[in-house]
Amino acid sequence: MADLRGGDLSRLRQLNSLTAIKALRGAGPLTLSALAERTGLSRPSMKEVADELVELGWVEEVRPSPGTMGRPARRYRFRADSGHLVGVDIGAHNVRAALSDLDGEILAETRQPVLPGAPLDERLAALERAISGCLALSRTTVDDLWTISVGTSGVIDVEGRVIYSAAVPAWRDLDLAGRVREMFPCEVLIENDSRLAALAESRRGTAKGVRDMVFLHVGRRMGAAAVIGGTVHRGFGAASGEIVMLPESRWFDAPEHLNGCAVVPEGTPPEDAAGYTLAAARNGDPVALEAVGRYVDDLAVGTAAMVLILDPEVVVLGGGFSRSADVLLPPLRERLERRCMRMPEVRASTLGDECVVVGAIDYAVEHLDRQLFAPDAGPLPLTR
Amino acid sequence: MADLRGGDLSRLRQLNSLTAIKALRGAGPLTLSALAERTGLSRPSMKEVADELVELGWVEEVRPSPGTMGRPARRYRFRADSGHLVGVDIGAHNVRAALSDLDGEILAETRQPVLPGAPLDERLAALERAISGCLALSRTTVDDLWTISVGTSGVIDVEGRVIYSAAVPAWRDLDLAGRVREMFPCEVLIENDSRLAALAESRRGTAKGVRDMVFLHVGRRMGAAAVIGGTVHRGFGAASGEIVMLPESRWFDAPEHLNGCAVVPEGTPPEDAAGYTLAAARNGDPVALEAVGRYVDDLAVGTAAMVLILDPEVVVLGGGFSRSADVLLPPLRERLERRCMRMPEVRASTLGDECVVVGAIDYAVEHLDRQLFAPDAGPLPLTR
Repeated sequence: MADLRGGDLSRLRQLNSLTAIKALRGAGPLTLSALAERTGLSRPSMKEVADELVELGWVEEVRPSPGTMGRPARRYRFRADSGHLVGVDIGAHNVRAALSDLDGEILAETRQPVLPGAPLDERLAALERAISGCLALSRTTVDDLWTISVGTSGVIDVEGRVIYSAAVPAWRDLDLAGRVREMFPCEVLIENDSRLAALAESRRGTAKGVRDMVFLHVGRRMGAAAVIGGTVHRGFGAASGEIVMLPESRWFDAPEHLNGCAVVPEGTPPEDAAGYTLAAARNGDPVALEAVGRYVDDLAVGTAAMVLILDPEVVVLGGGFSRSADVLLPPLRERLERRCMRMPEVRASTLGDECVVVGAIDYAVEHLDRQLFAPDAGPLPLTR
Repeated sequence: MADLRGGDLSRLRQLNSLTAIKALRGAGPLTLSALAERTGLSRPSMKEVADELVELGWVEEVRPSPGTMGRPARRYRFRADSGHLVGVDIGAHNVRAALSDLDGEILAETRQPVLPGAPLDERLAALERAISGCLALSRTTVDDLWTISVGTSGVIDVEGRVIYSAAVPAWRDLDLAGRVREMFPCEVLIENDSRLAALAESRRGTAKGVRDMVFLHVGRRMGAAAVIGGTVHRGFGAASGEIVMLPESRWFDAPEHLNGCAVVPEGTPPEDAAGYTLAAARNGDPVALEAVGRYVDDLAVGTAAMVLILDPEVVVLGGGFSRSADVLLPPLRERLERRCMRMPEVRASTLGDECVVVGAIDYAVEHLDRQLFAPDAGPLPLTR
């Protein structure tokens, strides 16, 4: 009934290529027949598509193993190694980086410590060392980098400029994307660290596949993010998740209950104080347990605000303190049950300190998918 | 390249029918050529599709007006009158109903007062009178009703059972959908009233086309809803928007600042007290202005919680108190500016007391669209 025009035909060819890439991504190598079945194409049409994708560098033929008998069927795989992605987490005490292939499979990781008060250039130098270290570890060069995806605390505008950061005040008004691009000439994405951690939880963590989730990013600082309808919610000005800024949420000073507990020995470095209290609470110390109770009282207020507003399926406790989930989750559940209309499941993150850097990789993979599979995407380019 | 099979062809025929219905809905009558252009079909294909839609009752040919000269072009329109939808708002003091065509164009409205403490059966009887009144006013019968869409306060489960209602405690555990279906044998939808009001604002109100919006449903009671990515957010258990249940939001008792103000004359009925204070504040009464200030202080806490978590483009003040937006918006903006990371636009609803009933109609229209345009929808049925 519909008339197929020239433009329609080239669009159809492109859609078939993308359908084939989708079928191959994440899956093992597939024969031509298996691919044809999954894409709904005839075998001869599938062969045409596969030949073109091999030519462009997106797909390669897998050689049959030497011992194979008879004439083995041709098999194809997505060339996830035809480019690389880097994820970075700029924290107050560490800059972490990871390098992955185009499927988000992590191939190398590095960590560079920085002092919380380090000046801007020192922190950017640590970032450069962290990324260069990943390139060296995985024996790749900057020419193989398609995207660097950076997570940092605070509010970032759409151009990658830091509007506000409570954790790293020196970041304010910094054109972070521009500075990273000066060091590494490739595409640079900047996103809020709590949103990246939430993305990692929903892509490969404890909330994989959960469509509505509240993510608590708790450690020395408090952060939050929400996954709504399967998507990490950014907000109109990319400023969502900042419940910590509401005094009535009682989040901003909540960690002080742990840091200032009497069980922490004098002279303990500030970054280790909370861990000391949490460990003492695990061992049943009544003073530490009381401090943890006051901390969870406050944590529960901001969390209940998010749960009452969003009614998520799952709440995930992530960030540095998720290592102490055994101490924190039972009292948190008890307080939420008293406060919420419908009690969500409460789970602990399994990604720990890696959550932001892993989320940064996942964000770069999503970005690649958006570019490839956008309704108005152009024809597939040659890979480099 | 792709092989079109029999199933694909009938699916293509159905998609073409739906594309034609989409092009005609809301638009005026269109000629075959105009329709063909909008759907991308050839004129002969378009004629086939149009003939089938006329046969099924979804579309009709418009007769040329008697004075038209020459041979006028055939024109088609969507038969929005081939069925009717009813929206209902069950409030504490009134049951409102409205009847519309399939485009959501409202044809009749009724209101039935009820006492706040009225027993269940009395309230249901008012609902029956309100709907029957709409049918009588528009000279239609229950056989023409496709869907009744009911808004009520509280949490409603997916089967239309009321889990909890602070406003109408007698509603608790009521199978509201089942009771309405006993009175009117058609499809019945039940939804939270604040979410319906938010839907109306985003479909035809002051936030038309806004993708991220926080809706304040304020009047004698406080409610809220959020539009996220162009969709009213329900939550996993349809319990979203209940920030009023968080004591720290300071919402639950906020209206008491207005109700208990010294300017309200003794003996004023409770439902008129707040209006008295708001009117006195408009006239500059310092005691009333102070009460409004305390009310807005509390309103701003729960609102800031939603804004900080969601970062919406727009906040809409709706519900009964939106009539006093001139008094409420300036102090609300001032307090939000102090509390929020990124200040959203703050607007007043223009739908007033009709917001829930209009939203109930819009919900029924959306439901119809979902059924028609769902990816796995069957072939188009005959209309009745």
